[in-house]
Amino acid sequence: MKKLINEPGAVVDEMLDGMVAAHPELRRLDGTNVLVRGDAPVDGKVAIVSGGGSGHEPTHAGYLGEGMLDGAAAGEVFTSPTADQLNEMIQATDSGAGVLCVVKNYEGDVMNFDTAAEMAGMEDVEVEQVVVNDDVAVEDSLYTSGRRGVAGTIFVHKCAGAKAAQGADLGEVKAVAENVIDNVRTMGMALTSCITPEKGEPTFDLGDDEIELGIGIHGEPGTERADIMSADEITEHLTENVLDDLDLDEGEEVVTMVNGMGGTPLSELYIVNRKLQSMLDERGIETWDAWVGDYMTSLDMMGCSVSVLRVDDELKELLAAPAKTPALTVTEE
Amino acid sequence: MKKLINEPGAVVDEMLDGMVAAHPELRRLDGTNVLVRGDAPVDGKVAIVSGGGSGHEPTHAGYLGEGMLDGAAAGEVFTSPTADQLNEMIQATDSGAGVLCVVKNYEGDVMNFDTAAEMAGMEDVEVEQVVVNDDVAVEDSLYTSGRRGVAGTIFVHKCAGAKAAQGADLGEVKAVAENVIDNVRTMGMALTSCITPEKGEPTFDLGDDEIELGIGIHGEPGTERADIMSADEITEHLTENVLDDLDLDEGEEVVTMVNGMGGTPLSELYIVNRKLQSMLDERGIETWDAWVGDYMTSLDMMGCSVSVLRVDDELKELLAAPAKTPALTVTEE
Repeated sequence: MKKLINEPGAVVDEMLDGMVAAHPELRRLDGTNVLVRGDAPVDGKVAIVSGGGSGHEPTHAGYLGEGMLDGAAAGEVFTSPTADQLNEMIQATDSGAGVLCVVKNYEGDVMNFDTAAEMAGMEDVEVEQVVVNDDVAVEDSLYTSGRRGVAGTIFVHKCAGAKAAQGADLGEVKAVAENVIDNVRTMGMALTSCITPEKGEPTFDLGDDEIELGIGIHGEPGTERADIMSADEITEHLTENVLDDLDLDEGEEVVTMVNGMGGTPLSELYIVNRKLQSMLDERGIETWDAWVGDYMTSLDMMGCSVSVLRVDDELKELLAAPAKTPALTVTEE
Repeated sequence: MKKLINEPGAVVDEMLDGMVAAHPELRRLDGTNVLVRGDAPVDGKVAIVSGGGSGHEPTHAGYLGEGMLDGAAAGEVFTSPTADQLNEMIQATDSGAGVLCVVKNYEGDVMNFDTAAEMAGMEDVEVEQVVVNDDVAVEDSLYTSGRRGVAGTIFVHKCAGAKAAQGADLGEVKAVAENVIDNVRTMGMALTSCITPEKGEPTFDLGDDEIELGIGIHGEPGTERADIMSADEITEHLTENVLDDLDLDEGEEVVTMVNGMGGTPLSELYIVNRKLQSMLDERGIETWDAWVGDYMTSLDMMGCSVSVLRVDDELKELLAAPAKTPALTVTEE
């Protein structure tokens, strides 16, 4: 194993320290792996928080800041944060206007967020929760009942975060998050496995001429192991599955995301985006905005996911609203 | 070789198409691998252009836009763009106020930019050139006489771009670029080789327990092949070389960059940043801003570089000035 780390057991702790060193506008809650906006709780604003296992950077702490998240809890690599830490995060970010928890659909995450919400509720914090399940690849999987939550989660952070920044109440913010969840679909693939620091060897075996279609962000098995294909063929496979599930009509508008898994050069993600956009063109679907980059990764895995979000006027306005975070900055037009 | 590509020979062409599809505010000059700001030439503004071999994305086209570059020429992977294409770029971006070419120090790039500047000069375009040579690792190298130009180039794009956006004339913009070049130093390292699409196998051999210190961004040999070390030891080695060369005094202010080579997870770059910032603290050097991310990559290489830029009041103002590009957005405070 070759990694830029010190002790495998110190990866999350040291990464969080390095992140706060780069972004002094963030603050680490004492004795936890929770980062919050330095100005949390923000007076009168509904807080948006998220969290999950580490290894998916910039998810989630990279989205902390104006117009997106108020708190992000980092579990150990590919491991849910504890309910105690999630509870601390909820309480530290609540201004009295309530807290929306954005949870990716993995059993550990859902269970620990549930417990944390109960704990915070006993301290009179109003907590609501949404569960993101955008991965169309498999119905049930290792760690998950139902569909997994993957890169589409970042659209939830952006839209719910913008709604909260506009002064909406908890119910309104939750409704926006649910609107995104209802309208976003994702599918991913891997050229190579990831290697976790603790294990130090590939999470799964993939032959030199094989790829895994429908991969999960922890290297969970997908739908199909296939012979290596061209970027266009891979993009077709992912995009067709996503579009079939989303059931778009001609003339509808979408925002797309080509997400890198961590080890894939940006040039290759643009090659995927080229094919994705030509497929949408052919179907008469209009791309209102196209995101390309590493938004939710799987350590050093090579591969990508394709997400498509159907957008209405409200979601477009919220996506275009200002955001200022380490991983995503949106300026006013 | 496992890559998200179609034909190896089509990588640059398809990447550029995919980039324009994601960023319709950019424009590709017909029949070339040159991208420009859609609104180029910008009335009355000095144009800043750059270019070089592909494989370093988001360098350079990712920095096209308000407050940074007006034009970016993409050669084939690790190959200089032709003088003809550079000349087309210079002419397409010149508003009459002149063009500053920001050139990384590689023989092919310098030669072709020189020729292009002569060609454009014959068409009465006023052209100035700066050559970035921030890599402290080696004095001469494969492809280069003198020091190589690496990730510090992005600071040149940012500062010169901001100065031009403020309405400065060509001489003033060039002086800012030279100020950055005089005050920035970088050193890199690799855990693994990159694999170019055309060759399809590692550019150089590195044992399972070896790393290359002082690597160039095309995999050119560095200063030393060493046994694998901890992230802290690697950071110490890179940072000490950079600081020694920059000869900083206690109390001086710097901007730092931990740059990923393409295949390295963001979490690991933050671990490097943690150590870098603690080393600066110990020396009484003040970090005014810290950049962490993939700014100038080497395809899928795993590794990083550390850059340190000494900043004065003018450079701080220019670094903080607004920028809106695919890879870097800076909002007004």
